[in-house]
Formats: sequence, C-alpha cells, structure tokens
Amino acid sequence: MPPPEHPLDAATRLERLAEGLYRGHTSASYANMVGPFGGVIAATLLNAVALHPGRQGDPIALTMNYAGPLADGAFTVEANPVRTNRSTQHWLLAMRQEEQVAATASAVLASRHATWSALEARFPDVPAAQELPVEPNLERAPWTRSYEMRFVEGAMRLSSPAGQAADSRSTLWIRDAPPRPVDFISLVAICDAFFPRLFVRRPVWAPVGTVSFTTYFHADAALLAANGKAPLLATARAQQFRNGYFDQTAQVWSERGVLLATSHQIVYYRE
Amino acid sequence: MPPPEHPLDAATRLERLAEGLYRGHTSASYANMVGPFGGVIAATLLNAVALHPGRQGDPIALTMNYAGPLADGAFTVEANPVRTNRSTQHWLLAMRQEEQVAATASAVLASRHATWSALEARFPDVPAAQELPVEPNLERAPWTRSYEMRFVEGAMRLSSPAGQAADSRSTLWIRDAPPRPVDFISLVAICDAFFPRLFVRRPVWAPVGTVSFTTYFHADAALLAANGKAPLLATARAQQFRNGYFDQTAQVWSERGVLLATSHQIVYYRE
Repeated sequence: MPPPEHPLDAATRLERLAEGLYRGHTSASYANMVGPFGGVIAATLLNAVALHPGRQGDPIALTMNYAGPLADGAFTVEANPVRTNRSTQHWLLAMRQEEQVAATASAVLASRHATWSALEARFPDVPAAQELPVEPNLERAPWTRSYEMRFVEGAMRLSSPAGQAADSRSTLWIRDAPPRPVDFISLVAICDAFFPRLFVRRPVWAPVGTVSFTTYFHADAALLAANGKAPLLATARAQQFRNGYFDQTAQVWSERGVLLATSHQIVYYRE
Repeated sequence: MPPPEHPLDAATRLERLAEGLYRGHTSASYANMVGPFGGVIAATLLNAVALHPGRQGDPIALTMNYAGPLADGAFTVEANPVRTNRSTQHWLLAMRQEEQVAATASAVLASRHATWSALEARFPDVPAAQELPVEPNLERAPWTRSYEMRFVEGAMRLSSPAGQAADSRSTLWIRDAPPRPVDFISLVAICDAFFPRLFVRRPVWAPVGTVSFTTYFHADAALLAANGKAPLLATARAQQFRNGYFDQTAQVWSERGVLLATSHQIVYYRE
C-alpha cells in the first residue's frame, strides 16, 4: 500500500484537462474563513507549473494576485509559458471558477549555476524550536491545523488586554502538520502563513485579505531537500498601514540558517 | 505655446490603437546599456492603465516581469482589466515587440478610504538634499542623465580600490532631471532607479538584469502631489546574493518623511 497522501499534496492536486489546463478542488484541510487559505492557492498554481511538460528550471519568483473570493469546490487552472530564454522561463497563470477569474499569477523559473554568493540578511537570534510551545490552532481558520507554529515573538492575541503592540513583527518556527519535507510547493504556502500584521499590531478583529503576494526563492531544490521535515524559521513585519492597505515583508530560513525565500504582500483591511 | 513635454512623459507616451491596445516608442533619454531602463518600461505600462477609460481607482500594486530584451524602437502595450470589484480592480498587461513578449505585468488598483493608519518603517537620519553633491551621470547608462541623485551612502564605485563593501545598502535623494512633480508614473520609475546591489556590494562590473519587480504604493494621488518637485529619499538593500540571482528591497519616502512606496525585485547576475 502506498503511504497516505499528505494533505498539502491532496489540496494542490491537479487533474490535466489539456495542455496547460487543469482542474482542482478546494480542501477542507486548508479552509480559511472565506474560501481557501491563500498560501494553498499559490501552492496550487505553482504545482500547475511543476506538472507542465514544458517546464524548464525551478521557480525564482512567483506573484499571486487574489482577484476575488474562491468558493469551496472545483476550479480550473491555466498555466502557459509565455517566453523561454536560455536560463529563464516566464509563465502566466489564472485560476477560474465558473469562467470568473479568482486569481492570476506570474512565475519566473530559472536554471541556476554556482556563482559568487553572499548573505546579507541575518538569521534571528532565536531559541530552538523544541524549546517553544506549539501555538493552539485558530478555530475560525481551519488551515492553521495544517501547520505547527511555535512563536518566538509576535503571536496574534486578538482582544489582548495589553492593547496595541509596539510593532507588527512576528518570528516563529513553522512546519507542515503532519510534517512533510519542504519543497517549493510547501515553501510558498508557508510564505503566506503569517497571521495578518494588522492583528499583531492592533489586536482587534477586522476584515482583511491579501491582494497581491510575491515570493522570491533563493534556494534551489537540493537546498530545500536538505532541510527535510525540520521546522523553518519565519519572520514578518509591516512597514506601513495606511488607508485600507498594509504591506508585509517576510523571510523564511532553513533550520540551519539558510535564507530560503523572501516574500512580500499587500493586504486590504477594513475598519 | 504649451510648455515642452517632460522627457518622462515623452518616453511613456502611448498612442491608442484600440480598446486596451497602445503603441509606444523607446526614448533616448531613458536608454540603458541594452534597451531602455526598466523603470521607464514599468512607468509606460502603468500609463497604459491610467489612459484606459475603464480604470477605477489608483495603483496599489504593480508587478513587472522582464521577459526579454526590448530593442530601441516601437512596441505595443496591451492592458486589460480582468476583474473589477467594489474597491479593487485587477489588470493584466503585456508589452510586445514584433509579436514577441518583452514584458508582462499585473496591476491592482484600489479606491481608498481613510482608516486607522500607522507607519512602522523609519525615515533614515539623513542630511538635507542640498547639503549633498549631485552624483555624476554614468556614461554607459544614459538614463542616469534623467535623474538627479545625491548619495547619502552606498554610491556605486566600480573598480573601487577599497574592494568589497560591508553591505549593499544605498540611501540617496533622487528626483527627475529636469524636475517634474511626482506621480505614480514617475514614482514607479524611481523605485527601479537604484544601481544594481551587486555593484554596491562587490564593485566589479558583470552582466545584470532585473527579472521581476514589484512595487506597492502606499500614497494616494493627493499625497504624491503634495511632494511636488522636491527630491525623494530612496533606500535599498539586498538580502541575499546566491547562484545568479539577488534580491533588492527598497523604500521611497517623500521629502517630509511620508513612505510613498515599498518595492522589491529579483535580479539576474552573471560572473
């Protein structure tokens, strides 16, 4: 008997309908308050590229634009390479539900070679994952059951009696629950698995939704594989909350301090 | 007689061919070593959205993907709204030259309303612009003649006898030359007007090229207008250089310390 499919692989599974056209289905394991967790939408679109026979290279950039709500149920994904160069390949993607565009995306793949390299960001000074308690899941966000999070700082405390925090920074150890070896699919979902910066900074519930989300992949497949199922160190902060939109800028590191991805998003909020 | 057209307006000028289809032409004022400066390509695509009669709102996010070189000469721009919601509008754009995709882009527009707001990023402690010398233009990058840059730190010194810098951070005052009131068009170009982080960190010339570039606009049109022609304070750094790609994360501030935009890119480099 094959091992049971990991919930993330089930959630991002696509059935090929034609060249560059797939059908998928939302998953209860990654449900959010309205529709699926955005990270699993990004992972699904990246999977459409991974499955395409024309794929050349591994992802270095993915931009998601969440255009409208996705209802629980079936959807289609279109994935087309629009230009293939010697070392890069540019893709356009769209997710639709009943002919309506729910999300668009662009991806850049690259064939990478060893060059002079240098890390400028600093791995935060943090306790080991096992020294920190696992954060309880959020009932209103079922997808949080699919992650094991251990906060170093900046856990979300809605209705905190302490009131507004000094800043919106969160730092946490995170991995899939159940554990799963990290790859581009799980990494991009983790890049979107931060609670909204608004709720960390100002612990009052409000409607929020990511509008645009970009991830740059600094690791290649071999570096990701080397992390196995170990937790990743993730840190995020906002630079500006202003008139209905705030940004988030994030880093995701391997357990051993390799910067795997940097990720940015802009998020709608309503008061 | 009308005042002469600013070179940026001339460079981003588009002629309407049909609904959502335009023709433009590269400009010698914004030429780079190969083809045009990427910032003016982004500004041109944003102008295609601005000119479209279906436009609702002002930009909050723009992602550019530079798919291949653009030759000096004519090009077409396609700009289509793919989903219009109550407060946001999602756009897809493409720039083509002889049927070949040179660049793709996505833009999100929004109608913004006053809400609780907070700035978390800090305006750097810098001298006033007029206390700093204007950086000489770079002969090999003609577009630098179209900007007045005054460096606080991290000017590019190729073949510097001092060798490798401790980090890749640059902070500078920048404005259009000749001066032009800042708007979304000029702001997005300025977000891409940083010299390559690679050259700041390691002062040796190498082929480089931005692959994907995202800007989040925190200012609305009125905030931009309030800055007039005053210089903007711009700061950028890399987080990781690794195996042919480095990232850049940047902030652009008004003269009075309002965070106008945050911007991110991933850049190819070859040794």
